Formats: sequence, C-alpha cells, structure tokens
Amino acid sequence: MTVSISVDAMGGDFGPKITVPASLNFLKSHPDASITLVGNQSTIKKFLKKPIESFDRLSIIHTTQFVTMDESPQSALKNKKSSSMRLAINLVKEGVADAIVSAGNTGALMATGRFVLRMLPGIDRPAIASFLPNQKGTSCMLDLGANADCTSHHLTQFAIMGSILSAVISKKKKPSVGLLNIGSESIKGNEVTKETYELLKKSHLNFYGNVEGNDIFKGTTDVVVCDGFVGNISLKTTEGLAKMFADFLGQEFKKNIGTKFLALFSLPVLKAFKKRLDPRRYNGAAFLGINGIVVKSHGSADAFSFEHALMTAYEEANSKMIAKISKQLKIDQKLI
Amino acid sequence: MTVSISVDAMGGDFGPKITVPASLNFLKSHPDASITLVGNQSTIKKFLKKPIESFDRLSIIHTTQFVTMDESPQSALKNKKSSSMRLAINLVKEGVADAIVSAGNTGALMATGRFVLRMLPGIDRPAIASFLPNQKGTSCMLDLGANADCTSHHLTQFAIMGSILSAVISKKKKPSVGLLNIGSESIKGNEVTKETYELLKKSHLNFYGNVEGNDIFKGTTDVVVCDGFVGNISLKTTEGLAKMFADFLGQEFKKNIGTKFLALFSLPVLKAFKKRLDPRRYNGAAFLGINGIVVKSHGSADAFSFEHALMTAYEEANSKMIAKISKQLKIDQKLI
Repeated sequence: MTVSISVDAMGGDFGPKITVPASLNFLKSHPDASITLVGNQSTIKKFLKKPIESFDRLSIIHTTQFVTMDESPQSALKNKKSSSMRLAINLVKEGVADAIVSAGNTGALMATGRFVLRMLPGIDRPAIASFLPNQKGTSCMLDLGANADCTSHHLTQFAIMGSILSAVISKKKKPSVGLLNIGSESIKGNEVTKETYELLKKSHLNFYGNVEGNDIFKGTTDVVVCDGFVGNISLKTTEGLAKMFADFLGQEFKKNIGTKFLALFSLPVLKAFKKRLDPRRYNGAAFLGINGIVVKSHGSADAFSFEHALMTAYEEANSKMIAKISKQLKIDQKLI
Repeated sequence: MTVSISVDAMGGDFGPKITVPASLNFLKSHPDASITLVGNQSTIKKFLKKPIESFDRLSIIHTTQFVTMDESPQSALKNKKSSSMRLAINLVKEGVADAIVSAGNTGALMATGRFVLRMLPGIDRPAIASFLPNQKGTSCMLDLGANADCTSHHLTQFAIMGSILSAVISKKKKPSVGLLNIGSESIKGNEVTKETYELLKKSHLNFYGNVEGNDIFKGTTDVVVCDGFVGNISLKTTEGLAKMFADFLGQEFKKNIGTKFLALFSLPVLKAFKKRLDPRRYNGAAFLGINGIVVKSHGSADAFSFEHALMTAYEEANSKMIAKISKQLKIDQKLI
C-alpha cells in the first residue's frame, strides 16, 4: 500500500523551515509514502529549493491562516476554519490522507482532531501516548497529560489503545502492559488503580500487573498506563532531572583547565551517551482515541526530530492501527 | 539546650553494624546531643569497640525483640511490644528522647509512631517528607507515599507541615510552597489540586502557586506538595532515570580500551558529579503529622547515610519543629 500523510506545515516554533526539509528527507527514505504540505505556498516553496513539479509524491494545499501557539482550542475551532492545521486534519476526514502530523498548538490539535474526526466508538476521551527510552529499549507511556481526572474505565481504554500502539510501533505481538502504581501488590494504590487492576486482569491484554515509577526506565513492561495527571508529572520530572544531570556534568567538566581538557577527550563518549537518550528520536506523540491518526510533534522540534514524528505517523497508518484498536475495543467492550 | 535521640539500633538491613558507628560519629560532631541505642546489648557493644562507660552521652536499652523488614504494621503493633523500634518510640512518648530514628520497616514505624505518639491536633494523616537536590540547593517534597488518596484539606495540612520542616532544616524564614500540578494556571489540574490551590491562596504560607514536574529539580520552590500517589511515582521515576543514566554512562566509558582509559582520567570529575547527587546526603525522611519527631532512614543506609538521618532528627528537635507546626496549624486552622 501507499501511505499519504498531511502535514500542518505552519505548525511549531519554526514552521516550514523545519517541516519542509523534514518532509523531503522522509520521502527519500519512504518510497511508498506521499505528503501534502498544508500552509502558505510561497513560504513552503522557499524551503523546497526545487520547483514543486519536480517532486512526484509531494503536493501543497495553500492557505494563509494558521493557529498560533498560545491560541485557545475554542478560538482555533471557531475562528480558524481555514488554518493549515484544520485543513490538514480535514484531509484525513475526507480520506485523502491516512494521517496528519503537526508541531502546532497541542490543545487546538486535540480539540480540532476530535471535532473533525470524532472519537472511536467506546472511547470517552483521547489520550496522549509517547515512547520513552529504557534500559531494554523503549516503552510506550500514556496518558501524558490529556486527562487529569480518570476513571478505571478510562484507564482500561488507554491500556487497550497503548497496547495496540506498542504492537504496531515496536513490532511486538503481545506487548506487556503495566499499571503505574505505588506498589506491586494488587491492593496497592488509590481507588482508581485498584479498580483498574481488576478490569485489566479480566481483559485480553498481556497484563503484567502494577509497575512502579522506577519500572518505566527499567523497561519492565512495553506499555505503562496512568492518568494524565500522573503521566504528565512523571514525564516532566524526568525532563527536569535530565536537565539537572546535564548541567551538573557540564559544570564539573568546566571547573578548571584540567577538567576542560578531559571534557575535550571525553567528548566522543559523552556524545554517544547523549545520543542514546536523544529525545528527538522519540518525537511524535499519538493522540489515541480519535477516529483517525493524529501525531503531535514537539513544538520546538528540528528537522531530524520532525522526521521521526512523520515516521511514527507512517507506521501507525501502514499497520492499520485504527482498525486494530477498534477490533481490540470490541473484544474487551464489557470492560470499557 | 541538649538534644536526646533514641535510635532503633536493630533497624535496617545492617542493624548495629551501621547504626552504632553512625551514632558514635554523630556524637563527635554534636557535643550537645545524647543518644540512646535500643537493641541487643551484646551486638551493640561489639560495634562500640570501647566499654560503654567510656562514652558519656551514650546509653543502651537492652531488648532482644525486633521488627523484621517484611512484617506487617499490624503484626508489629500487636506482637512486638518490646521491639527495639517500639521501645525507642516509647522513649519519645515518655519525654526521655526528643526524637526517634529508625532504618527499619517503614509501615511498622509509621503505624507504631502514630499509635504511641498520636497525631497532632488538626492533622488527619501523617505524610512522608524528604529533601531532594535541585539546581539551586534542595527542596522539601511531601507526601512521598503515605497517602494514596488525598483531599484538598490533607494537601493543605501537608503544605503547612512541609513549610515548617523546610524552615527548620534549610534555615529559611518563609519557604516558598509550590503545589505539584500539570500547568501553572490556577484552573489546571484535577479537582483536588484546583480546590487545594484556593485553600493555599488563603493560607498564611508563602504560596508560590502551581509548579510542574520539571520545577522540582529546577528548584522553583522550597517546598513541593503533592499526594502520596504522585509523590511516590515521581520519586521512583527519578530513581529509575538516575540508574539508567549511570548505567548508560558506565557502558559508554567501558566500550573499548580508549574509553576505559578516558574513564580513568575522568574519574575525579565523575566522582565530583556523583557526590553532588549522592542520595546518602539527603537521607532521613520526616514522618510529619505525628505528635513527636520520627525520622526514617533508608533501610540500606550505610553509616555516612544513617548519620545524616540523625542530623535531620537533631535539627528538627533542636528547632522545636513540632511546636512550630502546631502554631502554624492554629493560624490556618480554618483551612485544614
């Protein structure tokens, strides 16, 4: 099959400067893919470097309207019906594109995606899912911030969707699913996790049981399920710690001439270390639960990073993720 | 004043082998302190190296009973009335000691401390508070796992207690208090944090507002308040990430002869880096809300680490922390 992706070319901190080169690079390595860039034609063309006609799997849909990064979801929905984001999402609705990728305003993308594409039957709320590096490879974690208050049924929906996402991205047949909690025994946690434990035990997923915070990076399970409040705090805590580590390490190496000299020689080692944890390689969060593939790139993504978001969208579309989620939701429909 | 500390000498993974040398070291640097070691006299004496009579601020209370690390709190309460932990807590109740330090069973220490010493008027549940390193110094975080389900009133109680703990340990007059949340605006978060925000705004604390996960290590506020579910997951997530960092860095330096050679030369830098983040320097969690000073050391603490737990207990007692908490609770009693 061929996979067609619509790109909100104006989204993110850098717009076409990033989204266009990333799209071109992506097309080179994916000969069965095509891309529609939605946005200001003249700006986009500036970054193409060659006439649009010379690209056979690339097209442009022109619009001058775009959603700003600080715009409210309500305003985007009401006032930006011709925005690059909205038109890019419309392409999925119309069946012209198999997936939409945007580095734009998260709230607006979530609200517009939900409004235009609707929710999957059985899913109450979309969840944000992303992959994180761990000691064994990667794990898929959700929800990372869309839903602060969740019931056990919401968490069960997240578990089903995360399990399918993990299967299609990590190519695992039956990904293990862990419920993020404060102890491994089934009686541990708050009321919601205790109820969720019982539901997941009854599900057809490969439910591992409860996992703790340190299990995320240990790689105990392929999927880690939690509500958006805990997920967001856990993720941001790791960002804060990673920054402190990097700063402290930098300060120690810059302490005096001797340590600066060492830093110079240690550079290849430090670079290799940094590469293993490079967040750009994990860019591309899935908005699961929407009836269509919507992938959110970090707003500050560079071209390398945005290309990874495109690859995530490609994998999700190519593996028919939405159909697989729908099927799994039917299997466990009594639990959700 | 003099500060008297009772030590559960048998607690922790190593018992007197660690608790005795740590106590001796602590007494050397704290000439106004005295310690009562509670536990098996003959084992304790083995690690004293000199006759007990030659120590003028050290005494032993003998008992052969002790709480095991995997014992249930209920069993410890019911069946271990002569345990080293129980007798050490009793000393605080009797006014013989100003604080109790144990590296033993967390649940048993919490339950026994609560049972023997009772709760402070106005406090429903004890919270676990600890200090974490951040980019500016340290911050006090609570609750780290005692209470999975909390109301806004519980969180307000935690904020008051954490603020006083931070003041007495960090010697700050009006420590800033942040509410851990998923956004900085007052309307962000779940129902409990939204309510808590309003309560803390009305309090007499130096309330900063909401803080996010990355603010913990940025050092945005002196105190970070959250429920025990989020606190425990956040803390364990950082433990997991720190371990992954250390392992990855180690693997990169061990890759080949060249990198191994570099590691040898980089050792002083890496050691300095490690020292800054050494968790042993932050050992000693306060069980706040109990009507008496109860400090919990990590079970696997070494003597250096256990000594830090003793120092924490000393500071809390020396600064009359319990009286200060009681006073602050009265000031804001309408909110708790």
